Parts: sequence; structure tokens; C-alpha cells
Amino acid sequence: MAWRKPAVSSNHVDGHPFFRFCQTALADIRAQGRYRQFTPLSRLADRYPLYEQPETAPTPSTPACPEDREVVVWSSNDYLGMGVEPVVVEAAIRAIHEHGAGAGGTRNIAGTSPVHTALEAELADLHGKEAGLLFGSGYVSNQASLQTILTSMPGWICFSDRLNHASMIAGIKGARGSSTVIFEHNDLADLEARLAAAPKDAPKLIAFESVYSMDGDIADIAGTCALARKYGAMTYLDEVHAVGLYGAQGGGVSQRDGVADQVDIIEGTLAKGFGVHGGYITATSNIVEYLRLSASGFIFTTALPPAVVAAALASVKQVRKDNWRRERIFERVDTFRAKLRAAGIPFNMTPSHIVPIPVGDARRCRELSDRLLNDYGMYTTPINYPTVPRGTERLRLTPGPRHTDAMMDEMVAALGHLLRVNDLADASAVAMA
Amino acid sequence: MAWRKPAVSSNHVDGHPFFRFCQTALADIRAQGRYRQFTPLSRLADRYPLYEQPETAPTPSTPACPEDREVVVWSSNDYLGMGVEPVVVEAAIRAIHEHGAGAGGTRNIAGTSPVHTALEAELADLHGKEAGLLFGSGYVSNQASLQTILTSMPGWICFSDRLNHASMIAGIKGARGSSTVIFEHNDLADLEARLAAAPKDAPKLIAFESVYSMDGDIADIAGTCALARKYGAMTYLDEVHAVGLYGAQGGGVSQRDGVADQVDIIEGTLAKGFGVHGGYITATSNIVEYLRLSASGFIFTTALPPAVVAAALASVKQVRKDNWRRERIFERVDTFRAKLRAAGIPFNMTPSHIVPIPVGDARRCRELSDRLLNDYGMYTTPINYPTVPRGTERLRLTPGPRHTDAMMDEMVAALGHLLRVNDLADASAVAMA
Ligand SMILES: Cc1ncc(COP(=O)(O)O)c(C=O)c1O
Ligand SMILES: Cc1ncc(COP(=O)(O)O)c(C=O)c1O
Repeated sequence: MAWRKPAVSSNHVDGHPFFRFCQTALADIRAQGRYRQFTPLSRLADRYPLYEQPETAPTPSTPACPEDREVVVWSSNDYLGMGVEPVVVEAAIRAIHEHGAGAGGTRNIAGTSPVHTALEAELADLHGKEAGLLFGSGYVSNQASLQTILTSMPGWICFSDRLNHASMIAGIKGARGSSTVIFEHNDLADLEARLAAAPKDAPKLIAFESVYSMDGDIADIAGTCALARKYGAMTYLDEVHAVGLYGAQGGGVSQRDGVADQVDIIEGTLAKGFGVHGGYITATSNIVEYLRLSASGFIFTTALPPAVVAAALASVKQVRKDNWRRERIFERVDTFRAKLRAAGIPFNMTPSHIVPIPVGDARRCRELSDRLLNDYGMYTTPINYPTVPRGTERLRLTPGPRHTDAMMDEMVAALGHLLRVNDLADASAVAMA
Repeated sequence: MAWRKPAVSSNHVDGHPFFRFCQTALADIRAQGRYRQFTPLSRLADRYPLYEQPETAPTPSTPACPEDREVVVWSSNDYLGMGVEPVVVEAAIRAIHEHGAGAGGTRNIAGTSPVHTALEAELADLHGKEAGLLFGSGYVSNQASLQTILTSMPGWICFSDRLNHASMIAGIKGARGSSTVIFEHNDLADLEARLAAAPKDAPKLIAFESVYSMDGDIADIAGTCALARKYGAMTYLDEVHAVGLYGAQGGGVSQRDGVADQVDIIEGTLAKGFGVHGGYITATSNIVEYLRLSASGFIFTTALPPAVVAAALASVKQVRKDNWRRERIFERVDTFRAKLRAAGIPFNMTPSHIVPIPVGDARRCRELSDRLLNDYGMYTTPINYPTVPRGTERLRLTPGPRHTDAMMDEMVAALGHLLRVNDLADASAVAMA
């Protein structure tokens, strides 16, 4: 990739090495079978989990679809379908009528509406914390909070679970001057050994998730907090895939396990179990105030639209009350697993609501997903690198309250057929507990 | 800040040094007069720029307001009022009815609706580029794009304007392995000297803004691009405060100056001139594809809600057509400046739509803003550190199409009175050109 002096032309990027770099990188990505096309899908609010796949000519980044067709989506992270619940939709529409489509400013510059502070108070209450703080997304809440905390004092050591989400890693890596110790995934013995080996006086933070969304396993929060106390560490818990679904009011696994008060900072999203958009943290008032006044990713960006916040607030209030939604999703997940098991379809058993079907190869994973979509009208995203490590590619299914028995039977039949013809059933290790 | 072993208790954060750090940091912020309270304000969509300030008891982070009252807001960055335009509001509501309140997944995981790709195409077309890419906010578009580009190859040198926005700085600083050369603000001679001094073979990027929002000055884009060609650098231009307002179709200053084709990457927001929410970049297809497939802050986060994207798309289409909106805002700004001038109120003359009134002290700035709000029912945010350097604190006014002559007269009278009684008129250097 030698450097040549660019010609003087308006499109001078031609001469810049980045231009060739991109070409090569894209060719590599294609060669590795991990080029991603985004399948355009319109959610049908009245008929969720049905979506419409619009007629599209193929483009480099979207596949062809010969005509509009309806598709059952099995990959949504709006786990409870709250994004289409009338109470949420109506709250959003009311707020748009009253306040318009956007916030018009940063939180400090006329962008704080009373509904922003009300949602922050509601989330603090949900997790039993003194205060809450909204961010543009769960990604930003992790990145901005962790980076700000870990640069606040010299000498921070962050103990980070090996499978932590990219947004936590971005915050942790972004904190120059701090050091990072990766511990083996959900391995308390390894975590303890590493805590014990670290300098006693250094400020320590343990960063982990409750439900790991790609594998569907769940951390031992009480055990982690006990180690935190023993070694004087703070704890930062990502409950992104748990809020709404676990605990008596949807406060996450920390609520279910009765240990929310032992966690210093609980982070979550409004975009999955709550079905809307945005992210947040909850903690003591002092920690929240410090982040509110110092975190660049919180300060220097337009506040979430009042309508998004109003919809999220309506959703959180409703989800807290409706325990039947949680019962219903786990009944649906159990039913789906029973059908898979009866049909001999391999899947990874998990203690959560997530149903991974191992494939183990990027191209086959993509092909399986394409066949499900094109031949059967069912959509489930191929999960490939960089979302999961190479060799562990999978389909990841998220049955929800609105997936009917009939939809499940169709999915099981289709998988049975495709795995047989594709000879994928024994493609990787399978737990059928 | 000595370390003591924490007591074993559920609220074990008490023993952690971060807890005391936050206390001390908050006390320092208060002592420096830069504690920020967010004034809760509800935008009244039908009567913008009127907002309602709700009755609130004082809390640590929000000031008291004895009763609901109406306030004229002079600080919104919804410059054209597009967020309350019927065509935008109706697009948002239609999309919520059709698709629900949230996207339900990342772009790759069932979160790409046809309206996402339509908006990306529209933005590419607006800026005359091959492709566009949406991000959760303008902040994220800058941070994620710059960080990803500057870590793509070894040896990148980023030439960054001294006054670049925090979001660009976050991306540039986040790119470990690259080096950064700060050039003096809008100073082409300094930029050229630094380009000439850098190693010839290193891949170079010049990152700058068109309209600098706190000072309201405008970069020489053609001059910067000429230097880029001469020294083989790529150019990355933030048009966040210009899109919608400058150029025949609102394509920003690069469109107005006829040099958009000379800029490699044009970045913008949907949350200011377009009045909704979200950020984007536009560039060649290869660059966009590389970022789409590599940028962590793009990949690992829930897609913007279809309703936000539909509203933004309606806004962009409308703003492109309606040149009268651009004429109207500049007429309003000129009128306001004439009134300020006639009353002898000091302000910094700028070549943009932004009207800074220098104050030069954080506490006085806050006090002036409080008095305007409490005594006159007009809101303009005090702009203090860390948004601007200490000593350059200011009020920043953004007159828009809906600020009437009467509103302007009231603001001018109030400022005249407050600056006299506060003896602020000569508090800092003033240009009254
Ligand atoms: C564990 C985890 N944390 C954070 C996020 C980011 O949340 P959001 O989608 O709200 O940005 C995700 C997924 O998107 C996630 O899986
Ligand atoms: C120059 C500049 N770039 C980027 C941003 C971020 O845009 P957004 O508000 O959409 O995050 C802002 C302000 O918020 C800005 O002033």
C-alpha cells in the first residue's frame, strides 16, 4: 500500500491511501464471508412480530426482494413487544403533538423537558437507587460512564468480564491511564485471583453484565458483589438484556436476586425490554451528579426527543405493573424449546429467554438465514464476527409474547428441513439439557 | 484521599475512594460557579418558540419555579423550527402508528427499515456524495467515524482545529496509535506550516467544522481543501450547525461555497437545522461501507426508531425545497442585530446565524440567565466551561423564523436593563461591526 502523491483533482481522495485501504478491507470482509447486508424490514405495529419486507432491487448493502411480502421476525430485541403497545404508542403520539419531533437542544441548552427528569426518577426508583441519568443509547451510557469514571482518578483498575459488550469495552479502552484486567467469563474464581493479585490501594471497578445476550447465560451477581466487598471494588452492572424481563417489576436480574442494593451502578437500555430508545445509569446521587457534569458523551449532544422519553416512561411504568408479561415470555420460550427438543433441533440451553442455534461458520449461518427468509418467510439474523468470535456463529432466536404456537411449529419445521439438507445439525457442539 | 478498607455492607461504595472523589469534585464545581442546573422546559409545539416552565420545587439539579409559566426560548438549536412543522410531526405520527415506538434491534438485527436506507440516500444526495450512514446522534457520528478511520491504518496524523467540538475530539483522542496535530482555529497559515512539517508518507486527515457554534465564525472550506490537496490529506467536515441553513438546499456551507465535492467526508446532525434527532456522515461508497462494517459505535447499538427517521426524512425533503426558510432566518437575525445595535447592547458580530453576548464570568453569566428567566420570562442558556474556555463565558442567542419583532424588542429591553444594573456592558471585548 505504497503512498503516491495525489493528483490535484476535486475527487482527491483517490490518491489517499485510505481509499485503497477501504477497498482491500471490503474485499477481505467479503472473502471471509462476513460481509453484512441489512435486510430492510418494516415492523407492522398492529401485527407484531409480523414485518413487511419491501420489494427491493439488490444493492451492495441490501439483498433483493422480488415483491412486498410478510415475514415473521424471530430476532427482535423488543422482547415484550412494548414498542407496539397502545399505551406506549399513545404516549409517543401525545408528546409529539404537544412538543414536536425533537428536543432542540442539549440537556443544558433548553433540552431538558419535565419528562426527562421524570423518567430519570422512575428508573432510579425501579432499581432502588438515589438517581438516574439518561443517555442517547445503552451504548453511549456504557461508553461515556465507564470512560468518565475510569479517568476520574489516577490508577483505576477495571476488572472486565471477557465477554463484555463492545460498548463497555469502548468505555474501558477509552479511559487512558487506567488499566484493565480481563477475567474469564462468569468465572468468580478467576476474578478473585485477579483481584487478590492487584495492588491493594488502587481504586477498582468490576464491570459485568447480567444476561449475556449472545450466549444467554447469566452472571452470579451476588457472588461478584461479595468479591467486590472483600477486595474493596465498585461494581458496574449492564442489565441491558434483563430490564423489563427479570425481577418482580422488571428491574433486572439484580432485582430478581434481591441484590440490586449491592451493585453500585446499574446500567440499562430503553430499547429492548422497554421497546423504545435510549440508555441510562442509576447510582448514588453523587455519582450521577458527577457524570451529569463531566461525561462528554452526556453533555455535548442533543437530548433525546421528548416523545421518545415519554414513550419510554409509559413503557417502564406499565412493565413494572404487568407481571403477566414476564410470565408470558418465559412460557413462550419454554414452549418453543420443548418444540425444538421434540423435533431434535439442536440449540443451546440457557437460563435466560435467549435461544441460540449453533452454526459455527459465517457463510453457512448467512445461508441458513437467507433460506429461512426466502423460502419460509421467517427472519432470524445470522450472528457472525465481530458480534461473536469466529467459529461460534449462530442463529439467535428471541421468542416473545406474540409468537404463536403455529409460528413456532413453522419455525421448527423449517429448521428441521434446512438443518437436514444443509447437514448442519452436527456442525458444532450442542447442549440439549 | 487515603484508601481505607471498606466496611462489609450492602452500600459498600461508602468505602471506595471514588465516592469521596465525587463529593470533592462536586464541591469544586460549585465553588467555581460552574454547577449546572437544567431548567425543565416543555416546548409548546403550536406556539414555538414558547415553552412552558412547569412548577417545580428546587432539587439539587433543577431550580425552583413557583408556578407554571410561559417562557420565550432564545437558545434552541432547532434553528428553523422544523421539529414543530406539521409535515414533520405528521410523518413521525404516521410512522409510530405503522411501526411502533422503537426499532427493536440494531441495524443488522432487524433494525433497518426502508426509511433508514431512504434517509441515508437522501442525505448522500443532499451533499452530492455516493452514500450516507446514520448514527444515533451527531456526537456518535463524529466519535465513531473519526476513531474508526484513524485506527484503520498505522501512522495516521489528524490535523484538528483547536476549537473542534468535543465529539470530534473524543473520536480523535480515542484513536490510539494515531497522532494529533492541533492547528490554530481557522488559521490556514498555521495549518499549512504543520502539514508541511509532517512526514510526507503518513496518511493525513484534516478535521474541522464549517460553523463553529459557540463563536459563530465560519471556516474557509475551499482554502482548507486546497491545502489538503497540496499535502495529500483527506478532509472531514462537521456541518452540524450549518445543515438546513446554508446552501441552495440546506447542504451546509460546503454547498453554499460550491466545494462539497472537494470534501471527502461531510458529517451532520438531524437534531438542529432539521429539528429531529440523529447524526450522519456522507462520503464515497467505499468509505461508508467500511464504516458501516467496522465502526463499533454504529454496529453495536439499537437503530434509531423508524418514527425519528421518518420525521427527519420529511424534514430534510422539506428544507431542501423551501429556500424561504433560509431567507427568513437570516432576515430575523439581521433584524435582531440591528435592534441590539440601536440599543447599544454589546454582541459579537458573526458571519453566521449565531449571536453571542459576551459575559466573561461563569457566575455572572448564570445570574444574567436567571434574571432573564425569572424577571422577564425569556430563556437563554448561560454558556460556561467546559462548553467554552473559562473567561469567555457568554449568552448565546439563536433568533429563528418564529421570533417576532415584539419578542426581540422585549429581549433587547431586558438585556439593556440587566447589563446596566449588572454593569456587564464592558465586561469583555466586544465587536460591534
Ligand atoms: C450488553 C449490551 N449492552 C449495551 C447495548 C447497547 O444498548 P443500545 O442498543 O441501547 O445502544 C447492547 C446492545 O445493543 C448490549 O447487548
Ligand atoms: C459542532 C458539533 N458537532 C456535533 C454535535 C453533536 O450533534 P448531536 O447533538 O446530534 O449529537 C454538536 C452539538 O451537539 C456540535 O455542536
